[in-house]
Amino acid sequence: MIVFILGADGYIGWPLTRSFLARGHEVIAIDSYFRRRAALELDCEPLLPSPTLQKRMTLLKERTGLSGRVYIGDVTDPEFLTGLCRRYEPNVIVHLAEQRAVPYAMMNARKAAFTLKTNLLSTISVIYAVIEGAPTCHIVKLGSLGEYGTPNTPIPEGFCEMTIHGRSDVFLFPRHALDVYHLSKVMDTDLLFLFAKSDGLAVTDLMQGVVYGVDDSGTPPDLRTNFQYDHVFGTVLNRFVAQAICGHPLTVYGGGGQMRGFISLQDAIECIYLAASHPAGRGQLRVYNQFTDTFSVIQLARKVQAVAQGMGNDVRIQRLPNPRREGEDSFYQPEFRGLRELGFQPRLLDERALERMLRFVGAYKTRIDQRKILPDSAEFAARTRDGESPGARDEVVVC
Amino acid sequence: MIVFILGADGYIGWPLTRSFLARGHEVIAIDSYFRRRAALELDCEPLLPSPTLQKRMTLLKERTGLSGRVYIGDVTDPEFLTGLCRRYEPNVIVHLAEQRAVPYAMMNARKAAFTLKTNLLSTISVIYAVIEGAPTCHIVKLGSLGEYGTPNTPIPEGFCEMTIHGRSDVFLFPRHALDVYHLSKVMDTDLLFLFAKSDGLAVTDLMQGVVYGVDDSGTPPDLRTNFQYDHVFGTVLNRFVAQAICGHPLTVYGGGGQMRGFISLQDAIECIYLAASHPAGRGQLRVYNQFTDTFSVIQLARKVQAVAQGMGNDVRIQRLPNPRREGEDSFYQPEFRGLRELGFQPRLLDERALERMLRFVGAYKTRIDQRKILPDSAEFAARTRDGESPGARDEVVVC
Repeated sequence: MIVFILGADGYIGWPLTRSFLARGHEVIAIDSYFRRRAALELDCEPLLPSPTLQKRMTLLKERTGLSGRVYIGDVTDPEFLTGLCRRYEPNVIVHLAEQRAVPYAMMNARKAAFTLKTNLLSTISVIYAVIEGAPTCHIVKLGSLGEYGTPNTPIPEGFCEMTIHGRSDVFLFPRHALDVYHLSKVMDTDLLFLFAKSDGLAVTDLMQGVVYGVDDSGTPPDLRTNFQYDHVFGTVLNRFVAQAICGHPLTVYGGGGQMRGFISLQDAIECIYLAASHPAGRGQLRVYNQFTDTFSVIQLARKVQAVAQGMGNDVRIQRLPNPRREGEDSFYQPEFRGLRELGFQPRLLDERALERMLRFVGAYKTRIDQRKILPDSAEFAARTRDGESPGARDEVVVC
Repeated sequence: MIVFILGADGYIGWPLTRSFLARGHEVIAIDSYFRRRAALELDCEPLLPSPTLQKRMTLLKERTGLSGRVYIGDVTDPEFLTGLCRRYEPNVIVHLAEQRAVPYAMMNARKAAFTLKTNLLSTISVIYAVIEGAPTCHIVKLGSLGEYGTPNTPIPEGFCEMTIHGRSDVFLFPRHALDVYHLSKVMDTDLLFLFAKSDGLAVTDLMQGVVYGVDDSGTPPDLRTNFQYDHVFGTVLNRFVAQAICGHPLTVYGGGGQMRGFISLQDAIECIYLAASHPAGRGQLRVYNQFTDTFSVIQLARKVQAVAQGMGNDVRIQRLPNPRREGEDSFYQPEFRGLRELGFQPRLLDERALERMLRFVGAYKTRIDQRKILPDSAEFAARTRDGESPGARDEVVVC
């Protein structure tokens, strides 16, 4: 296959790029370096310093002989992407090129607008690039289970039938996201669904749980993916592990009863690979929920606490006001069938997996900057809108 | 009331501004002149030359004593709008400041992206301006019946209950728009719904039918609203009337069986006024369907044909390939209750109303430019993607 990976410099994008290359596919790795620039601006550098995408690709070639092309550019520019589609005629585009941090989108009006603009315009650009440059190309879009919110019903994979006053029709299952970032991804899906119907696009929408884990299966340090543990780009389990290692309390927003789906980085890559290898039909929007476990945030914190304490760390749990308004301890039951039918065998989040993460992060303990673990108080107060402040950092103005 | 009208220079915006002023309210009229610039670029000037918004406001004051403030600026700039909210503390914002032409959004990738960006960023800007500058302000957003597509069920006003595997929840009724413009408005609603829940915004979403009609009830010519009959900004009935007057066939896309809701300009203004005068509650997204009649496009063409022929015009109907993929002759039943409960008394589209429109446009017959009635062939072929060409205009490149 000829594979475009948009967002190839990212936490998922880089190991995914390596995985496609290792399985013998041709990869065009594309990134705008947005996350690098934002992490710099917000002083949220990842745990490991990561060489540029170009440099990592060169290192990869030197060490393994695997080689992919790198393009640094903004996929929201339709001419850039259409040109690449015409040139390489990809079989699959894996679209990861989005602003993907909930806290970033909630910081202020400008960053909310930026998130909407970047995510929607990258998606419409992918759509037109495929129509104009590679019309049979399969689009694999990374969605999120967070797009659904927490409905009181099971969450089907894709569509549902509804009857109103005795008449029935089939609808895309309604998605009531709880923040601007996840809403931007609902909108992505709506766009892809529209053009699947009107222009025969083949689309897979992967409704992914929160991804956790490290890239430690024999990968040399300078080829590992970035691991963010900060309050902006760090996902919840990765943050908990860094907090446990450096003696910071595990910070839980609200009561912690909010439910989430989870999946390891390795399994996420496996699922994306499976979806890419089994394309959707032309004109089809195919939706898969992509997770292995569901926990409440407080359950997860307690799991980390137990394993970390067993390894000799002193770990407390601290509650902070929740910047999102969301139900807690609610019913949560996403369906999980489609990826299993493609042969996916989930690896659950067990003590061994947690121990491995704790050991990996523990080896870089001295590199953890505790000031990055919580947002600065002014910004957090603005997000929570109630004036409460965790007060962990000096005030730094970021706009 | 202190009323902001965003998009006050538009077809609805300007008579709405006059209507609020005439009923004794304070109006801040805001526009970016986007439509004027786009009409200039695309060579689609309206039937009547219209003085700038500033000039029309001055003329209005001289003739009637009614006076409103005018701001020319881009509401997608959150600082501009937040500043105005802090300064005037509006009771209502009527949000009409969007790219509102379906054909414009379908021209190419760049214009599709522009439509998404403009409409989403104006809405997120309104949201933050209200949160930060006027938190109790009621937002009245002009939506469209076109956001729903044509489901096989009745279209409720707002919410619906759905049961999956024996468990029920209430969802916003799913909207499956058939083009990027209408989809951008679905996304507007999703944003407003999110912030109604999270920040207590009071929102009314008016799902409006296709607006038609002229602004002829005693208004002097230079204070009348713009009337567009062209292939980009002209809505279907207004186009039919201009076509009938100048001897051009009435152009129907596809078989013409596609169903639409309709409402006159006067009734649209009345509905917006009623909604603005009866605010939604804080934290509430209130959805009203806003239309008076439903017809298929071919039914509408035959109505215009009959009345125009009765007035001595020779009128034919011509079918063109439909650039949208949509069902025809399908079930179509939007509910219509909320605005009636507020006291709205619909005026139906009857022969008299059509005669009045035909007479009004007939008085400006010599100003109709037939080259504007159809898109140029290259652009149209790109939109329909099947190479068929209506062939009415010379080829002009617009990007």
